[in-house]
Amino acid sequence: MQKDKSKSKNSSKTVESSQTKEATSSAIEQVTLFPETTSDRPLKPDYPRYRVEPGNLINLADFDADLCESYRKKKDIEEELAYQRDRLGMLQERLYAENKRSLLIVLQAMDTGGKDGTIKQVFSGVNPQGCRVWSFKHPSLEESNHDFLWRYHSRTPQKGMITIFNRSHYEDVLIVRVKKLVEDEIWQKRYHIINDFEQMLTLSNITIIKFFLHISKAEQKQRLESRLENPDKLWKFSINDVNERKLWDDYQSAYQDAINNCSTAYAPWYVVPANKKWYRNLVIARAIADTLAAMNPQYPQASADITNIKIPD
Amino acid sequence: MQKDKSKSKNSSKTVESSQTKEATSSAIEQVTLFPETTSDRPLKPDYPRYRVEPGNLINLADFDADLCESYRKKKDIEEELAYQRDRLGMLQERLYAENKRSLLIVLQAMDTGGKDGTIKQVFSGVNPQGCRVWSFKHPSLEESNHDFLWRYHSRTPQKGMITIFNRSHYEDVLIVRVKKLVEDEIWQKRYHIINDFEQMLTLSNITIIKFFLHISKAEQKQRLESRLENPDKLWKFSINDVNERKLWDDYQSAYQDAINNCSTAYAPWYVVPANKKWYRNLVIARAIADTLAAMNPQYPQASADITNIKIPD
Repeated sequence: MQKDKSKSKNSSKTVESSQTKEATSSAIEQVTLFPETTSDRPLKPDYPRYRVEPGNLINLADFDADLCESYRKKKDIEEELAYQRDRLGMLQERLYAENKRSLLIVLQAMDTGGKDGTIKQVFSGVNPQGCRVWSFKHPSLEESNHDFLWRYHSRTPQKGMITIFNRSHYEDVLIVRVKKLVEDEIWQKRYHIINDFEQMLTLSNITIIKFFLHISKAEQKQRLESRLENPDKLWKFSINDVNERKLWDDYQSAYQDAINNCSTAYAPWYVVPANKKWYRNLVIARAIADTLAAMNPQYPQASADITNIKIPD
Repeated sequence: MQKDKSKSKNSSKTVESSQTKEATSSAIEQVTLFPETTSDRPLKPDYPRYRVEPGNLINLADFDADLCESYRKKKDIEEELAYQRDRLGMLQERLYAENKRSLLIVLQAMDTGGKDGTIKQVFSGVNPQGCRVWSFKHPSLEESNHDFLWRYHSRTPQKGMITIFNRSHYEDVLIVRVKKLVEDEIWQKRYHIINDFEQMLTLSNITIIKFFLHISKAEQKQRLESRLENPDKLWKFSINDVNERKLWDDYQSAYQDAINNCSTAYAPWYVVPANKKWYRNLVIARAIADTLAAMNPQYPQASADITNIKIPD
């Protein structure tokens, strides 16, 4: 976990967090300058520390799911989160207009880990025209009758889009391994296949960023109980979650191996402390906004032949 | 255009417009009571007047695209729009949780009519996990090799989802007719086919609501010029828009016939005055929120066998 790699992404905050997405174009310009600007302000939150560097093997047990730097409560981060969400919205608009590249976000977590909540709280505010979420559940019979990447490949983002995979092709080295749905030698080969697949996507101008929302076993218990107690959350509870919980250690091992084998320079994994939902949201919002800012999407320029056009009455 | 049909949807405003989507569940309850509650407060905006009643033939030339009731400026509607957006977000969450029914929104308009802007300004704030936007452009070769409904049918909403068609199967009785891409007898039969298709969808628990964003020819000129003058809007300009503009009257006729033939009790068309973008947004936001409120989606109830569950450590 190196801590300084993205210091160059620091910035003086040139855009007010209260700014809406209907900002002036000059304000949008400033936002895209973000990655080039430097300042003495510390990176907040310091999300690069959660990136898993290729070859730097991690042990999930070493990760404290309660981490939240020097923040203490939700209120401490609200302004920064609003700012990052605005920034995300503005950059997404440019990515869509540019229509050349796209962003694929992979969200994985144990049950109750916060995938749905992250999507709601980080992406509500993004224009849904440029953002597509695919939630992968039990494969259909048709999907099972194809290779394991087939259903994911068909949902990769088209140019200009942000696509979020809520669960992903990693399930095929996670639940498939833990529940022994295929032979060991089958899922073991998939790390390599996944790396090749992701590299192929990045060579087609798809930027990939992957988040493991890391919660503790105690936190999961609390969240499952909360679903049982709250009528508006009960629909999210599945008796199956209780059975899966008994396999906690097996899943942790499977996640650890997947992350160690598949965090690459072109498609990095981030292990995000996720016991505190507000901190998790801020880490992810900023990591994504910075990723988009580094892509620096541009509105298409005028082609010479439309500059002298006159609109008829 | 009857004006009173939805008076029963009036309501005392039980939820503050500043309320976020993380409202308490009791607040959400009040929102869903909306259609049953009555009050003396006039319906604002009075969108039912824009609904085209089956058999009540309209003449598009009679519709004033500048209408905005007694509102005068954007500032007059900001609070109400924020309230309707919050309501839309809360109801969408319930629709998604219920996972039984869905909503299909069709947006059609002349070039620059405001389809993209409507999606951005009405739906930014909705959880993208429960909302999918499909923008239909020139059909691919594969799409052209199928019946005209094929590409639309495959994008209809699954249970729990709001799907927005940015352009739709109506293009096959609009541009296809105006540009004479098929024989008259082909597109003429499509009104009936479309009505049958939409009825079939509604019988599968898909609620359909269709909006024609009605702008004047002068307004289109202004908007095209604005795109040419503004570097951040230039990407939306197409030289083709100028050619299409020359066919304005043909398109108006085609829209009028499509609306008259295909505004049904189960899938109504609304002709929304759209010269004023802020009024257009408010009309559409409320019409959709009221439609969802009338559907009254519910969080799934507990099944008897999960009430005594204890979560293991």
